[in-house]
Amino acid sequence: MDPTSFETHPSRYKHWRLTTNGDQATLVMAVDGDHPHKPGYELKLNSYDLSVDIELADAIQRLRFEYPEVKCVTITADLDRVFCSGANIYMLGLSTHSFKVNFCKFTNETRIYLEDASANSGLASLAACKGTTAGGGYELALACDETILVDDGNSAVSFPETPLLAVLPGTGGLTRLVDKRKVRRDRADVFCTTAEGIKGKRAKDWGLVDHLVSRSKWDEVVGERAKALAAKQTVTRGPRFELTPLEPKITPEKITYRFVELSIDSGARTGGLVVRAPEAVDSFDASSEPWSLRAFRELDDALLRLRFDYPECNVLTVRTHGDAERVRACDEALAKATTGFAREVRLLQRRVLKRYDNTARSFYAVADTADSCFAGVLLELALGADRFYMLIDGDEKIAVSTSVANGGFFTMSSGLSRLDARFYGEAGRAQKILARGAEGAIPSEEAEQLGIATIAADDIDFEDELRIAIEERASLSPDALTGMEASLRFVGPETLETKIFGRLSAWQNWIFTRPNSTGQHGALTLYGQPERPQFQWKRT
Amino acid sequence: MDPTSFETHPSRYKHWRLTTNGDQATLVMAVDGDHPHKPGYELKLNSYDLSVDIELADAIQRLRFEYPEVKCVTITADLDRVFCSGANIYMLGLSTHSFKVNFCKFTNETRIYLEDASANSGLASLAACKGTTAGGGYELALACDETILVDDGNSAVSFPETPLLAVLPGTGGLTRLVDKRKVRRDRADVFCTTAEGIKGKRAKDWGLVDHLVSRSKWDEVVGERAKALAAKQTVTRGPRFELTPLEPKITPEKITYRFVELSIDSGARTGGLVVRAPEAVDSFDASSEPWSLRAFRELDDALLRLRFDYPECNVLTVRTHGDAERVRACDEALAKATTGFAREVRLLQRRVLKRYDNTARSFYAVADTADSCFAGVLLELALGADRFYMLIDGDEKIAVSTSVANGGFFTMSSGLSRLDARFYGEAGRAQKILARGAEGAIPSEEAEQLGIATIAADDIDFEDELRIAIEERASLSPDALTGMEASLRFVGPETLETKIFGRLSAWQNWIFTRPNSTGQHGALTLYGQPERPQFQWKRT
Repeated sequence: MDPTSFETHPSRYKHWRLTTNGDQATLVMAVDGDHPHKPGYELKLNSYDLSVDIELADAIQRLRFEYPEVKCVTITADLDRVFCSGANIYMLGLSTHSFKVNFCKFTNETRIYLEDASANSGLASLAACKGTTAGGGYELALACDETILVDDGNSAVSFPETPLLAVLPGTGGLTRLVDKRKVRRDRADVFCTTAEGIKGKRAKDWGLVDHLVSRSKWDEVVGERAKALAAKQTVTRGPRFELTPLEPKITPEKITYRFVELSIDSGARTGGLVVRAPEAVDSFDASSEPWSLRAFRELDDALLRLRFDYPECNVLTVRTHGDAERVRACDEALAKATTGFAREVRLLQRRVLKRYDNTARSFYAVADTADSCFAGVLLELALGADRFYMLIDGDEKIAVSTSVANGGFFTMSSGLSRLDARFYGEAGRAQKILARGAEGAIPSEEAEQLGIATIAADDIDFEDELRIAIEERASLSPDALTGMEASLRFVGPETLETKIFGRLSAWQNWIFTRPNSTGQHGALTLYGQPERPQFQWKRT
Repeated sequence: MDPTSFETHPSRYKHWRLTTNGDQATLVMAVDGDHPHKPGYELKLNSYDLSVDIELADAIQRLRFEYPEVKCVTITADLDRVFCSGANIYMLGLSTHSFKVNFCKFTNETRIYLEDASANSGLASLAACKGTTAGGGYELALACDETILVDDGNSAVSFPETPLLAVLPGTGGLTRLVDKRKVRRDRADVFCTTAEGIKGKRAKDWGLVDHLVSRSKWDEVVGERAKALAAKQTVTRGPRFELTPLEPKITPEKITYRFVELSIDSGARTGGLVVRAPEAVDSFDASSEPWSLRAFRELDDALLRLRFDYPECNVLTVRTHGDAERVRACDEALAKATTGFAREVRLLQRRVLKRYDNTARSFYAVADTADSCFAGVLLELALGADRFYMLIDGDEKIAVSTSVANGGFFTMSSGLSRLDARFYGEAGRAQKILARGAEGAIPSEEAEQLGIATIAADDIDFEDELRIAIEERASLSPDALTGMEASLRFVGPETLETKIFGRLSAWQNWIFTRPNSTGQHGALTLYGQPERPQFQWKRT
């Protein structure tokens, strides 16, 4: 197996060009058709695949950390009549179901990161669509703060997925249309079933784009809007910090980073995720990479590799090792640090923890060694897991502890903190846990009583109980588990994000498996071929 | 084709016994194994199918209208060791995908009706589970206000769907566990993967049931709790009104009621729904059946028949005919009426309109005749449709009008009124429409300008435009349309109901189509057979 790499660098981009000028950045989509993520298709007309989106995610991340002076990024294309024609259809047709779903999930996360950068980091985005803006291309535009469409009598924005491919716009588009941009639902209905899309004045009148600009005024207006967006930013980032390569050591059974380790037992369909505590307390002057950043970048990379390269790993244990006090000290230092860099580190931790929540694998957090350190930000991994097993040891060295990190900053997609989600509907319960945590570490038995641990057991029972629980989980249908976990993890309020990951993704998952799209005579399968798709007509 | 009948009467129940005594009712589940909805399986151990749930829905409806004195209904079983073993697995295994999905949707609606009766009509419900309470049986208990489980060392509540059948609890169970009952998510995870379920003290400690009662104290405590629930009710119903049969005239192409007509063109995969205005202004003294009740009961029945008996009908026009002023007068009379009966009529209208929103067919409302009467409560049908086409006539006889009915009482599952959903994010816009409506009817062209009509066209274009729009819609993949409409219709806030219909149902839809459940070697297919299921292990 050739492992997927999610790391890249602007100097190695094949599909984008990133340039900056003062407080402005420009990200030019210039997809190299001859360098797809996997052989078998050509990336024509700025259509994209995973490799294109990995570079986009990298660019957004680097703008946040490495270009703190940038306040607006303009996303544009180097083609004259095409902005972006969306996800490559042939790539989708050749991909497995699990790849398609994980590809859509990753692209959704990347677009949410654009929105997060705008909401929290003083980095706005502008989609300058000087040509056809179709499917995922328009979904990318919807994720930006503003969208400009060229008024050339020809260029349209469109969602041709339903009429042409019998699938849904897969990157959050439907939700963003009605919930974010507040396009009227009957107009959204017309738009989403009109393959050629909507252009000109009607696109603006319907709220599909923000500005309509002629070719002659294009550069001028794009520049003006980018300046205006930059001028509105009040959050400042910095000092600059360069993201260095993670350089994991990869063997078929194990991916080893400095602080994180992902191991896979492919025969048993199980795995293990280990996160180690820092070796020293972090400082956030950007002179060196703090553990708080490094460990979470590593965890992020491990989660992505898990999703794409180990589709059969059904359940993973999550363990932590090291000095819990040092984890808490890092959390305190991070919360006290006033630099923009420190804020970026916290926001990155939050995004990585959301990526963990949104990873469709069963996670069993396990505290069964004296150096277990589910403390502060690492406690979030136990609270976010489907279950948390704790060994009761005689001298109560095995314990959890809280820090400022558990107080509410690390919201899930639902907007709730993991403590609030755990005790949903029990007002004040999370505060009680935090108050108890402030008094010192909470050993296993008490952690179970307080509702933090799912199961605490002594060493007579612990090993067998955990082993059987993992074996049982690994034997269950992966599909049913994915649906079950998606329903149980996101209790309480819904947001644009939970709608995208919980509702829209579920429908898309279903539609991707239906004969009408991916069957032998399905529209996605036959795209670009002379044969007409044949549909099964039963509505559900 | 043998049409499905959703009408029944307690005197004809095969699977339930309804009795009342003062302010108490008892609904005894006594499923007759030899009378399934369709031949091919036996309904053992109080397992249920569509015929059982149709009777349950009828019983709840009749308690609301015909037994206004009843303040609590106790749901129990006539078996000694089994309350209900859930939906019949063999029935599911024999059913088509579209039937399974529509069956789950109907059972969800029925359970939401129980919750609606408790929240709005002074009719509480108590699940008295004196034995095994599994799958859909436990989901029924979760929909009640309180659940009592017998403490006999044996009887458990359980969701065995994921471990035994590789599907999800299909009647809103996962959502009700964590969102309604607020069971901790890690405990819900353990519960939903433990096929044998959870009994006794643990079931109570985890919040899975409200009371745990021994066999010796059973009758006493059940009676006490039913009395206590009745005593808490403050809303009164009545006067009593008996629901008479709808007696539609059914031909293969048309179902004709007194005020409603559903016609089907099976070759074109299209249909038409017509609702006629009242012949006189309603009175709500329960001496005769008002149009406001009759027409909506008929519409409800037509929607159910459409869902179950015409699965290939992809798109329907929705038209209204009659005197718009009389519709508005009925709305005014209904809003002013102070009887409990009148409240029940309004609540029924609200439920039927939600059933319309939740029907997975494309609806195009059409106003193209001078006697079109999208007024008041009937205007909700146009606002709830995916599109609304209006003909511009020279003398502006074609128009819409508002009434008190559009002011917010008829909330969708999201909790928004259809006007608020239409103008989501535009504060005050719905109020402006209502203010304009108070001045008189709004003709087609103005209705388009105000955003009520999707498309208004004069007679040169209208017929062609509508015809092409319907033909195009009928040619699109039904799966993609279902997912698209589910995403566009329910803009804005999410509720338990939208979570059940939008998120949980979408996951269940997907899982039902996966080989791990319904494939040749799937767990649902092989249930009860010696062969072990074989799973595809890729996670998505």
